[in-house]
Amino acid sequence: MISSSLKEVVIVSEITATYFFKGKVADPKPFAEKLAVGLTVGSWTELTELDQQHLAAYKGRVVQAEQQPDGLYIKIAYPDKNVTPDFSSILTTIFGKLSLDGAVKLIDIDLGDYTRHFPGPAFGIEGIRRQLDVEARPLVMSIFKGIIGRNLEFFKEQLRAQALGGVDVIKDDEILYDVPELPFEERISAAAAVLKEVEDATGHKVLYAVNLSGPVFQLKDKAMRAKELGATAILFNVHAYGLDVLKGIRELNIGLPILAHPAFAGALAGSDSYGISYPLLISKLARLAGADLILFPAPYGSVPLDEQEAEKIVQAARSEAAVPRAFPVPSAGIHPGLVSRLIDDFGHDIVINAGGGVHGHPDGAAAGGRAFFEAIDLYEGKAAGTAYEKAVKQWGTS
Amino acid sequence: MISSSLKEVVIVSEITATYFFKGKVADPKPFAEKLAVGLTVGSWTELTELDQQHLAAYKGRVVQAEQQPDGLYIKIAYPDKNVTPDFSSILTTIFGKLSLDGAVKLIDIDLGDYTRHFPGPAFGIEGIRRQLDVEARPLVMSIFKGIIGRNLEFFKEQLRAQALGGVDVIKDDEILYDVPELPFEERISAAAAVLKEVEDATGHKVLYAVNLSGPVFQLKDKAMRAKELGATAILFNVHAYGLDVLKGIRELNIGLPILAHPAFAGALAGSDSYGISYPLLISKLARLAGADLILFPAPYGSVPLDEQEAEKIVQAARSEAAVPRAFPVPSAGIHPGLVSRLIDDFGHDIVINAGGGVHGHPDGAAAGGRAFFEAIDLYEGKAAGTAYEKAVKQWGTS
Repeated sequence: MISSSLKEVVIVSEITATYFFKGKVADPKPFAEKLAVGLTVGSWTELTELDQQHLAAYKGRVVQAEQQPDGLYIKIAYPDKNVTPDFSSILTTIFGKLSLDGAVKLIDIDLGDYTRHFPGPAFGIEGIRRQLDVEARPLVMSIFKGIIGRNLEFFKEQLRAQALGGVDVIKDDEILYDVPELPFEERISAAAAVLKEVEDATGHKVLYAVNLSGPVFQLKDKAMRAKELGATAILFNVHAYGLDVLKGIRELNIGLPILAHPAFAGALAGSDSYGISYPLLISKLARLAGADLILFPAPYGSVPLDEQEAEKIVQAARSEAAVPRAFPVPSAGIHPGLVSRLIDDFGHDIVINAGGGVHGHPDGAAAGGRAFFEAIDLYEGKAAGTAYEKAVKQWGTS
Repeated sequence: MISSSLKEVVIVSEITATYFFKGKVADPKPFAEKLAVGLTVGSWTELTELDQQHLAAYKGRVVQAEQQPDGLYIKIAYPDKNVTPDFSSILTTIFGKLSLDGAVKLIDIDLGDYTRHFPGPAFGIEGIRRQLDVEARPLVMSIFKGIIGRNLEFFKEQLRAQALGGVDVIKDDEILYDVPELPFEERISAAAAVLKEVEDATGHKVLYAVNLSGPVFQLKDKAMRAKELGATAILFNVHAYGLDVLKGIRELNIGLPILAHPAFAGALAGSDSYGISYPLLISKLARLAGADLILFPAPYGSVPLDEQEAEKIVQAARSEAAVPRAFPVPSAGIHPGLVSRLIDDFGHDIVINAGGGVHGHPDGAAAGGRAFFEAIDLYEGKAAGTAYEKAVKQWGTS
């Protein structure tokens, strides 16, 4: 028996959240302490010593509270026994009430040992390279263009042209759902047939990522049906659905890589004083939830994401962690002339993703795809091809 | 047969989205037109006349584009055939890519005829009044306090004290999940027993809203199990899970009112230049998804939501629409001295929600609950009671 006068040693496994508060606080430590208590056990000084002893294992703990010129940085560690292995409970505890409290942004979460409850990518960079039998080079992905309102013939034609250009992955447009003109199942079956033809003719294997969409409680069955019908990857609008929905789909273990699309993420991450940072939301958390490919707006085009932020996204996707590494996928405004810059900035373990930069090629989508591989060849010291040269004439190199 | 030279009349049923862009645009109309095309069919002027004829039924349409002193207001109507009956597809189409494009906030969505696909509250104001047999007065709800780390005895004791105070609804703390100290099923069974005792002794009926939490694909079964075990309402952290998860739970039709908690909503709605407005997100959309009670931070306390915004939240919950009216639930910092102001500001069709304002009463939680009813009596011209007087001594009237 332990004497009650001895301080009990409480061993607590923790989840750490880092916040940025716009503005200035006179005394950061007590401010942070009040948060740590308020967001967990509610009150502290009013508790009896006995209650304090018991509740110590549930109380938030201030790790850091630092006023800097741009604002206040606070790090709080939450006992992981306060939550359950889902993003919703974690986000509600660390940012539920707090998100309503003014200009505060959640900039990092460290799950610590609790990471064991999060699956991470089923394939990751290594798994997808193995699946496609591509060792070192960047992968190339293309997207359908102008597909809304079109029919299955248009879909097959565009798919074939893209596949013939040699791309590794072809993804649905994220705004194409399970609609009568192009139903989910028909798209999968048609794509499987077209891509088999291309593979038989050229030996080249392409993944088709179908947009998994519809009522949330039908997604499990639809994902399994997609696999049965020959889909080879899944595109998922995770931020419109929620991270736990992605985790649930990943945990089905159906054997399809998942592409996490950043659509709608700006609503959560766009502001620099509210919400969740882009690297945390679209990369670190999506990877933990099970994304194999992390799409993000490249910092070269019209999308206002700066290079530092992009670098952090790439890092969060590929950092050493208890879960496999995910492929970062720079997207938006990508054309062949940008390939060398992409590789310089982000290395070879990326998937280069293009829409207009494939379809807008003067010689069509197949030539557009080829131009990307010629750009990769060029980067590796081989001669430039004509498809690349025409692409550069069209779009330049910046 | 229609001659191809005749302009086809395209009858399109539309979903209208209203955006606010911080900043100034030289020429609003073409800017908006580019968005409307880009977010739907992708391109327009390059299309053949035949394609234009066909795609007219899928193209976004600019309804309004107006530069005002604070920023640019744009309204775009999207053909509802571009989406499917779920929030994820709608949000991805109208705010997927656009949310990544800089300082733009989604301030309204009008589903038009498409509302038929959205269930709205199963009970709503009228249904809940009928359920509790309370006709005209505001309802009173209370919350557990300091429940994290506590056991079932503590839970039952607090529940009993709250119920004896006469409150209509008692809700779980939103940060209490399905944890070993207080498992979901045990909470429901214990609450059902305690509340039956109270009803047998006093004739007073109380709803207990259990926090539905855990892995997303287990929520359906857990909701049904909650009903079996005697839960009388469900609390749901809809913004941490996603609107479609709420819709899916509502569509189970298990016969339990749903309380939509605003936790985490600030991550989406806090900024005035990014994300989704509070009235749209936590009230209009949550109501469409199936929330019977809409919790929101009252504009009196520490939470920085102004009175105009609160008024819009209340209006969006109770406006005439194709779905039943939901109860607005002003929360955070509520004590008995604020009751008259709450009724003046928001009328009788509200649920007054208090935590500290119940538990912190000098004579305990039961007296705290009574003080709220005395405050309502006082508002209606009856004499003030002693519980109310003590509450006012404690917290004042503002």
